[in-house]
Amino acid sequence: MAKAKKAAGTKTKEEPVILITNDDGITAPGIKALVESVKGLGKIVVVAPDKPQSGMGHAITIGYPLRLQQVSVFEGVEAWACSGTPVDCVKLAVDKILHRKPDICLSGVNHGANHSINVIYSGTMSAALEAAIESIPSIGFSLLDYSVEADFTGAQHYARLLVQQVLGKKIDKHLCLNVNIPLAPKELLKGLKVCRQAYAKYEEEFAERKDPHNKTYYWLTGEFVNFDKGKDTDVWALKNNYVSVVPVQFDLTYYKLKDKLEQSLITK
Amino acid sequence: MAKAKKAAGTKTKEEPVILITNDDGITAPGIKALVESVKGLGKIVVVAPDKPQSGMGHAITIGYPLRLQQVSVFEGVEAWACSGTPVDCVKLAVDKILHRKPDICLSGVNHGANHSINVIYSGTMSAALEAAIESIPSIGFSLLDYSVEADFTGAQHYARLLVQQVLGKKIDKHLCLNVNIPLAPKELLKGLKVCRQAYAKYEEEFAERKDPHNKTYYWLTGEFVNFDKGKDTDVWALKNNYVSVVPVQFDLTYYKLKDKLEQSLITK
Repeated sequence: MAKAKKAAGTKTKEEPVILITNDDGITAPGIKALVESVKGLGKIVVVAPDKPQSGMGHAITIGYPLRLQQVSVFEGVEAWACSGTPVDCVKLAVDKILHRKPDICLSGVNHGANHSINVIYSGTMSAALEAAIESIPSIGFSLLDYSVEADFTGAQHYARLLVQQVLGKKIDKHLCLNVNIPLAPKELLKGLKVCRQAYAKYEEEFAERKDPHNKTYYWLTGEFVNFDKGKDTDVWALKNNYVSVVPVQFDLTYYKLKDKLEQSLITK
Repeated sequence: MAKAKKAAGTKTKEEPVILITNDDGITAPGIKALVESVKGLGKIVVVAPDKPQSGMGHAITIGYPLRLQQVSVFEGVEAWACSGTPVDCVKLAVDKILHRKPDICLSGVNHGANHSINVIYSGTMSAALEAAIESIPSIGFSLLDYSVEADFTGAQHYARLLVQQVLGKKIDKHLCLNVNIPLAPKELLKGLKVCRQAYAKYEEEFAERKDPHNKTYYWLTGEFVNFDKGKDTDVWALKNNYVSVVPVQFDLTYYKLKDKLEQSLITK
């Protein structure tokens, strides 16, 4: 199987394979917009969750088996609905559908922001990062609009612009971009801006309810708080109508703290 | 609510609060071993999943409400079973059980390794990282033994040694340590070794099965492959009977690639 997974050789000029997934589910308007935006740039194959999987982070399915079903959702595009998480979709696509690594993996367009700390909770971005672990260049797209009737025109323009650039040259073995698009008409967008992830988090306040048996249950809610005043962050870029582009990595080592601990830790 | 969540003041010398969670579920032997190992170092409160949540990564529960149930599992220790993910447990513990930030959050001891790339799939480590986002010092522990009858003696020794050091001084605002313990008798362990995350991944091969209706389903399986020959990695340390300690961060920005992209990206 390992052999079959190798990226397409460069000798024969094959059409690039574009794998598309998301976390809102295969019927979400955002993924349709993404498929439309890259038509003509390669052979598109969609493998996406059969139901919403927002907030699934980098979850994989261990305790349950996974199902794949070929579906007809996008005109002229091969598409598969998967019962698992966004990360499962990428793994299954490579092993069981494409039987090779795609030339690029796209995720989204997510309905809602994935800037700053959201990258860590986001199924959209985890799918992209999973591809990067596999040395597949990847881009996750998110629009700052939760509405099912959101306008994806700007997102589509910048998605195509980015995909063309990434397909055109080898930028990095583990390229993974977290792209967020502001809620603004396309003509007001100022262009792509390369950023770092803002330091921000959610202040949780679980909403408490009682069920008909008078037992308590909780809904996760939270207020977004940005602690980062930097003008090089994704949050700043989005507020100023730039499309934010944060390169993301999967080496989570905190090197600065590593050096400090090496000096100070009692080891036995 | 924000006020109630502040860390305990330093004026009154209160007993430190130790929050303990895991991803194998509140009845797993590993969490019991962890609770035992830190007895006497502070007030312990356990908030852990009511069922196994391995591989949940940084998933949070959005589409369903969460339940909390006080349980009697550990002698003399307040304990709550939570219907959500490990990350949900940390969030709920702070907001609804402790009503303040604990002085430290411990996760584990996980039944099985969480070194190298496993950090990104691990519910154990995601719980710890969630605490670090909240400026709660945290440590995740994992033993390289999946067995329900695993020997946690070595893990317990090093857990206590580390917790004493972290409680004793303010090392870093967002301290999060990924600690793995080799499968070896305690007397053969060479001590703690500060490491970086090895570059490794899984080669997936989904196992294919047919259900009684002749429909196909898949089980995730994979072979671990380490590409990293460095002697400063967690994988190397564990092979050489060290307890690996990798400091982990939640800023996923790939800074090296950021600089490169700033020079080369066509932005409009």
